[in-house]
This record gives sequence, C-alpha cells and structure tokens, in this order.
Amino acid sequence: MISKEQIAADYQSIQNEICAALELADGKAHFEEELWEREGGGGGRTRIIQNGSIFEKGGVNFSAVHGHLPDTMKKALNVEQDDFFATGVSIVIHPNHPMVPIIHMNIRYFEMPSSFSSGQPVRWFGGGIDLTPHYVLEEDGRYFHGQLKSVCDKFNNDFYHRFKLWADDYFFIKHRNETRGIGGIFYDRLTANEELSWEQLFEFSKAVGRTFAPTYLELVDRNRNKEFNEKHQAWQYQRRSRYAEFNLVYDAGTRFGLETNGRIESILMSLPPTAQWVYNYQPISGSEEEKTLSLLKKGINWII
Amino acid sequence: MISKEQIAADYQSIQNEICAALELADGKAHFEEELWEREGGGGGRTRIIQNGSIFEKGGVNFSAVHGHLPDTMKKALNVEQDDFFATGVSIVIHPNHPMVPIIHMNIRYFEMPSSFSSGQPVRWFGGGIDLTPHYVLEEDGRYFHGQLKSVCDKFNNDFYHRFKLWADDYFFIKHRNETRGIGGIFYDRLTANEELSWEQLFEFSKAVGRTFAPTYLELVDRNRNKEFNEKHQAWQYQRRSRYAEFNLVYDAGTRFGLETNGRIESILMSLPPTAQWVYNYQPISGSEEEKTLSLLKKGINWII
Repeated sequence: MISKEQIAADYQSIQNEICAALELADGKAHFEEELWEREGGGGGRTRIIQNGSIFEKGGVNFSAVHGHLPDTMKKALNVEQDDFFATGVSIVIHPNHPMVPIIHMNIRYFEMPSSFSSGQPVRWFGGGIDLTPHYVLEEDGRYFHGQLKSVCDKFNNDFYHRFKLWADDYFFIKHRNETRGIGGIFYDRLTANEELSWEQLFEFSKAVGRTFAPTYLELVDRNRNKEFNEKHQAWQYQRRSRYAEFNLVYDAGTRFGLETNGRIESILMSLPPTAQWVYNYQPISGSEEEKTLSLLKKGINWII
Repeated sequence: MISKEQIAADYQSIQNEICAALELADGKAHFEEELWEREGGGGGRTRIIQNGSIFEKGGVNFSAVHGHLPDTMKKALNVEQDDFFATGVSIVIHPNHPMVPIIHMNIRYFEMPSSFSSGQPVRWFGGGIDLTPHYVLEEDGRYFHGQLKSVCDKFNNDFYHRFKLWADDYFFIKHRNETRGIGGIFYDRLTANEELSWEQLFEFSKAVGRTFAPTYLELVDRNRNKEFNEKHQAWQYQRRSRYAEFNLVYDAGTRFGLETNGRIESILMSLPPTAQWVYNYQPISGSEEEKTLSLLKKGINWII
C-alpha cells in the first residue's frame, strides 16, 4: 500500500517539474518560494511567479497538512474520525496576454490515519485541470480536452466522460448562468475498487499532474505572439472579474480555506492581478466576445 | 400609521435628491437609469454613474419589491408569513481619486402585509452609512462619524453608540482580520417602542438618507484636488480588491441577491471598476499605507 509520505514526496517532485518547465518557458521571471508551517500540523511550499514575460501572476503550491478536523468539516465530509492528513499541488496561472488562457490544476490526496486500524480506511484522491480562456478558441478547446481524455483513457474508459461532466457542474457561475471557462476534468473522493487499485489511482493522479505543463505550454505557444489591443485587454480584465467571483463565491477550496483560517495569501493567490467590473456589459452582436460567451455553457462536446 | 406606499414614495424622493446632488458635484457624468421589474412582484429604478470627473463608478438604486418569501428566507428571517414587501435605497460610490473615499449607504423598510391583520405586524427599518477610505485620514474620519452621531442624537442618545459597534462588527473582513473601512453606522430590525414611534423611526431613516449627500460631498471636496501618483493609484486598486472580497464573501445583501436570482447587475454594481490583487503585499514601515492598515480595526473611537 502506498504511504502518505510517498504521495507527498511525489507531489513535491511534480511541483518541482512544473515550476522548472514554466520558468523555462517564461524566460524572465522566477518563482519565489515561501515555506510555511500550519499551526495545527504540517505546512507547505508556496511558489509564486509574477510579472513574467508570459505569466503575470501564478502560483504552483504544494502542501501537506495534518491535524484535527473541525466539527463543521467532519460534518461536511461525513466522517467520524477527526484526525486527517491532506496533501496536494494547486496551480492557478494568470497570463499577461489576453489570448493565452487562465489555467487551474489541482491534485490532492486525503486520508484519516486512525481509520486504517479499523480495516476500513478513509482515503481518497481528488483533483482536475480546467481552462479559462479569455477568448474561447475552438481548436484550442478541442486540443485541451483531447489531452485530458488521453490521460484519462489510459486508466479507465469512463473517467473522461464522468470527470468532464463533473467539471461542467463544478466550475459554474450560477448567478451569471455561465461556466467559468471551457471546463476540463474534475474528480473527488476517488477510491480503489475491483477495476483500479490504489497504486493505479496514484498513477492517475500523477499523470494528471504531469500532463499539466506540456498541455498548457502548447496553448501558450499557440497564442503568445498574437497581436492584441486595449479592447482585448479590457475584455481580459472583465473575464478575470468573473474568475474572482467564482473563486470567492463558489469555490469549495477557497471558502474552506477562508473559514478555517488557512494561509490567506496561498489561498487567494488564485485571484487575478487586475480585474474590472463594468456595469451591464453587453457584447456587440457577432463579436469575438459574444462568441466566447456563447461557449461558456455546460454540456459542450469538445471531443470530435 | 405610515403606509408602505408612503415610505416607498419618500425613498424615491431621496434617490432623486441624492442623484441630483452627485451629478451637480461631478459636473461631467450623468446617471443612466434602468427601470426593472421583478418576476415575483415589484421592481426598481437602478441609476448608475460612470466615468465622471469624480465618480468612476457608482450606483444609487431604489427598489420596492413584494411577493412570496422562499423557505430559506423565512427561516433566515425567523418569520411565519410568506408574503413580504421590501423597499430601500442602496448606494455604493467608487471615486476616481485615491484620496476620495468609497462610500456605501442603505436605507430600507421591510414588512409582511398579512401580519397586520393579526395585530402583531412584522415590520422593521434597517440601514446605515459606512466609509471606506483608500487612505484613512483621521480628521475626515472624525468629521464623518461626527455627522452620523449628530443625525442619531436627534432621535435617540443610544443610537450612535449601538449602531457604530454594529457597523464595526458587520463590515469586517474576517479572513484579513481587518475592517472594510472606518465603519459608520449599521442597524437592522428597528421597531417602534415606548420611546420611538414608527413615525419617528421613519423620520430617522429619512434623516440618514438625507445626510448622505452633504456628508460625502464634503469629503469629496476636501480631497479631490490633492495630487496623487501611480503608487497611490495601485494602493487604491488593492483596497478595492478588499472591498470586492467583503461584498462577495460576507455581505448579506449581496449573497441574498445571488442566491435568490436577484437582478445581478444591480446587486453587483457595488463591485469596483478596477481592482488588483498583489501577492503577499507588505506595507513599508512608517508609510501612509501602513498607517491606514493600522486604522482598519474594530473599536476605534472617532468622536472626540
């Protein structure tokens, strides 16, 4: 059986690999690292890149925390033990360029160590990758979803389908009736069964983590040299405000962090560098902005 | 007994007076009006001013809505009837100038008409005014709180004290451990008693509404011609991001609106035109920014 130490160690390696790949691509900015400790147990390695040639603000964070679950959280997770261990890598990248998409990735593992002795251990994997283009380009969307499907298909033929629907439902800004972006995959509480062992789930988790850098950097390369003007930038800032709305109003991880006195700067590193709220914006008929809004819907099939 | 129609009519007059005063002060921009109807009953008059010489983005909104309360809301309000009437004026102003403060005002009245026949009518007034300076200037803070105290003292000697504490508690960004601004007054569920009749409470509500324009415009005049540079503007954008955090994470009115399919553009008109999130910002020791942060605390006495 894989140990939590092994999972945390491999997640740290993935953090290292991703930071190295992004720094190389950016060529200008470097990640600044902050090591932090959690009062209740454990800590993390927050790495932030800012004001790069490609990346305006991004975080690639690792944490491995343990301790006692607050009662509200026990209730939310529907568990009886109160000791927990959680480790994960979390990424949000806000690029400078309006044609380069925002991206989010998370891989995580949760367990309640004391449950192991009872023979019914509480443990699961969760995570996902989703894309938030300021301007939705259909061929990029197909490429992105195709990459995710390839990773999923190596482990289980149902994964992509199930996790794509889950992402559509999760990354939804209810009060705007629009999705945050074009989705991707989202999964939680994945446990071993007859088909997939814990080892295989761990391999899947790592494969999701390792597909992040090549997939995103392909999308960066496709778009980073396109021309853009102030109109595109204003739209980018407006789309970022929707990203902030989602994270502050709906995102479970963000709200959990805010309610449990998490490390605020690590939790809110996902918020955009500059965002704008324009009153009652209406896209011009036939414009690229209108087309993007038409594609921020659940249930779009990105696989041909 | 004052009727709900009378209250709504006087609130509309107050909206008119405030819009006229702000337009006159701005001298450039005009309010754009949108009339809207609520599906369940009633509607409103949203008035937005944008890109003015003083006011970058502001809303002075009136609404008078009625209908059936959703069960969640009955529970939250701890009431048994399900028909309601609510009217109010709501204001948020984001000025261009970093030395001119953001301001918020609300006056509102709520009743459950069917409760009137039972002889124990459910009705109350609520509201308040609070100030969010990007840079806290102590003399402006004292002036602002002094104005509010004068209004309160005309009606009840306890009002200012009670409502100032209430504002400190309400306009608090828990995850930042800072207040949204320097507070002001906040009150809710104010009902008539031996000391104050419904007529007097209504007069108090209108007095709060009518102190808004002269009080705010004095603060505008004191600061609008001061020089400022990019550093001040960057700080302004950062303070606005905290304003957005408060409204999206904590503000009861905003969250109620988002959860009950309110008119999104009217609800979110409070969000700032441009906001910035900087990772792990630390003010320079001895700077004006540090001083401001030191004054974003509960329990400061602004009355000398």
